[in-house]
Amino acid sequence: MSVSRVVIVGAGFGGLACARRLAGAPFDVLLVDRNNYHLFTPLLYQVASSLLNPGDIATPVRAILRGVRNVRFRQAEVTGVDLEARRVRTAAGDDVPYDYLVLAAGSTTHTFGIASVASLARGLKDLPEALALRNHILCCFEEGARRPDAAARREWLTFVVVGGGPTGVEYAGALAELARLALARDYPEFDIEEVAIVLLEGRERLLSAFPEPLAEEARAQLTRRGVRVRTGVQVSGAAAGEVVLSTGERLQARTLVWAAGVRPAAIAEQLAVSRSRSGRIEVDEFLRVRGQERVFAVGDVAAARSGDADLPMLAPVATQAGRATAENLRLAVDGRPLRPFRYRDRGTMATIGRNAAVAWIGKVQLKGFAGWVAWLFLHLYMLIGFRNRLLVLIGWGWNYLRYDRPIRIVARAKDD
Amino acid sequence: MSVSRVVIVGAGFGGLACARRLAGAPFDVLLVDRNNYHLFTPLLYQVASSLLNPGDIATPVRAILRGVRNVRFRQAEVTGVDLEARRVRTAAGDDVPYDYLVLAAGSTTHTFGIASVASLARGLKDLPEALALRNHILCCFEEGARRPDAAARREWLTFVVVGGGPTGVEYAGALAELARLALARDYPEFDIEEVAIVLLEGRERLLSAFPEPLAEEARAQLTRRGVRVRTGVQVSGAAAGEVVLSTGERLQARTLVWAAGVRPAAIAEQLAVSRSRSGRIEVDEFLRVRGQERVFAVGDVAAARSGDADLPMLAPVATQAGRATAENLRLAVDGRPLRPFRYRDRGTMATIGRNAAVAWIGKVQLKGFAGWVAWLFLHLYMLIGFRNRLLVLIGWGWNYLRYDRPIRIVARAKDD
Repeated sequence: MSVSRVVIVGAGFGGLACARRLAGAPFDVLLVDRNNYHLFTPLLYQVASSLLNPGDIATPVRAILRGVRNVRFRQAEVTGVDLEARRVRTAAGDDVPYDYLVLAAGSTTHTFGIASVASLARGLKDLPEALALRNHILCCFEEGARRPDAAARREWLTFVVVGGGPTGVEYAGALAELARLALARDYPEFDIEEVAIVLLEGRERLLSAFPEPLAEEARAQLTRRGVRVRTGVQVSGAAAGEVVLSTGERLQARTLVWAAGVRPAAIAEQLAVSRSRSGRIEVDEFLRVRGQERVFAVGDVAAARSGDADLPMLAPVATQAGRATAENLRLAVDGRPLRPFRYRDRGTMATIGRNAAVAWIGKVQLKGFAGWVAWLFLHLYMLIGFRNRLLVLIGWGWNYLRYDRPIRIVARAKDD
Repeated sequence: MSVSRVVIVGAGFGGLACARRLAGAPFDVLLVDRNNYHLFTPLLYQVASSLLNPGDIATPVRAILRGVRNVRFRQAEVTGVDLEARRVRTAAGDDVPYDYLVLAAGSTTHTFGIASVASLARGLKDLPEALALRNHILCCFEEGARRPDAAARREWLTFVVVGGGPTGVEYAGALAELARLALARDYPEFDIEEVAIVLLEGRERLLSAFPEPLAEEARAQLTRRGVRVRTGVQVSGAAAGEVVLSTGERLQARTLVWAAGVRPAAIAEQLAVSRSRSGRIEVDEFLRVRGQERVFAVGDVAAARSGDADLPMLAPVATQAGRATAENLRLAVDGRPLRPFRYRDRGTMATIGRNAAVAWIGKVQLKGFAGWVAWLFLHLYMLIGFRNRLLVLIGWGWNYLRYDRPIRIVARAKDD
């Protein structure tokens, strides 16, 4: 009897959770990702704001899977799936056969097809985007510093963040700290009051997934830190040095950080399967792709339902779905009935800055210092490995005691 | 009375030492560098071998100069100098006037004009090169892993390092550790014995600047770690997947690390001043550029003499020359006679791997564990700032206890 082959596309929260849960199971598992690391995306904004090193939140997949005999890894870009022949195609030309397929390819930055916006906007969804954003922000300060004209300077020192969800709120708060606590002391050339950080949200309030009082707290904390929060305003266009708002207003700015939307990874479009309005792959209650017996989809790429709504694109959803799929694969290969996926919502949080976060855990609402401590411990706990926890803790301790965000370096790998 | 303006080109060891020594002096100092950080180049090979983060050895120049009122910084690429008009030109179009100029632009990788070699060779002289090299090495292991054919695999898993000076010796040793201690456990797809690390040196022995017994020790230690050391052999050409040796031999390899030569930064060529055979700017005993009263040159870019020979391109030479130039600038502005520069050679070291380094300090030769401990403490001491020291120490401790080089991530900033 030959062992069933499982191919998992994506080593994010969903794919990695599935692979780990399949350790020791009667499967030959191949995990495929375009990157050779698993990225702890909840802390990505701290890389983009000079607080953490990429290596603190990116862990080599092979290191995580060491010693797991039935799970292998391959770094490859998946370009398509032949559902009939049960084969995954990669950009390197490899053709990988499977008996079961788990699609966990995640999502990418999406600017909704406004070309002018796409030309200026910078995403914050993967490590290359985060490093490019960090480099860009630091370059803006340098550009500002060498301009004697105040109007020219203002354009470089205005940072527009779009999207009032957790990513936008957290990045705007981190950017305010980077500017006011660290960079203010670096640049005698101008007054820090010339730096403007603007957070835009199309709806009437921030953090729409949170209870109203927590959203109010987030707004108040951001405002206290100098962030100009504007709700009920959208971005309708952009040009070099300019962001156009739905009100007709024009903001002179060289920076437009896009935290207002993502879309499922390209693989979702390439498959001949039914998709939700937001482009996510439709799945049944067992997370099987509709019409496919042997293909599962988990995390951001899949439109798993909970009651009337799709489950949100969040790490805990992906992790739980990945584990549930591993369990169902074990059942499937035994010929036993699958178990429907139930998401257990353990709460959600967003940090605004030192001593300030909002957390909504079950029926408990935490804010201020209590929310912040809860946020710190939860994220340390979720990180993979002792070393990453230690280094992130040192980074945070240094930041807390020294009011410093030390990785203020514009660093790129040389082009090959 | 107006204050004299000093422009320093380059924030490496020479330029930074000069700028720091001018703190509080009656000068208006502008330090210019293409990067916004000072790089601790002696540990660069540890970034290129997945042991340290870029942020551990790159410190923002503005952070170093915080609170120093008479020294400013500008991130800019210097494209030329108008010696008549006393102005420095930058790529951004700025024209910076000076009363005194200090050229401390350093050096870059130089493959001696062999075009085929240049196409394959990778330098290890700045942060972009080190990051690109790290990414490349890790990609080679992935490429090797997915090739079932042993000959094809060998090409990806053969790493040729050219240059038996400290950089080549240290990188070959680090690469052997990365492969045998860390990556061996990551790749069940092949036997680690298939990985070949070849160190080539054109002369008859390694480390020609060291006493013979230390060079022998280095060779023995490298060989014990699985590095194939070959002396008396040069690289005469290269092609994709192939390195051609002076013996006519051809090594199938995708990697050619060039640690066999550097040349002075391009600015040296752009000035109408006399240069040494190796292209370094000729200076008098006060480190003034020949024929120029107000222009000094320090470090790799300058051919400072010691007896019959040019001083070597080493960090301590640059640091001491930078400080001496600051002192001479203070004398010059007071109208007092300058003091000739004397280099104090405090020794030189190279590490091969855990528990093994060679050090030559005064008349003392250290090797093995003693040399290694001396190397560790000296480098920790020379690093800038408590945080960098702490993080590098943690990185080394982790490596020592866990036999791990953890930053095995292929990470690039997104192209802008």
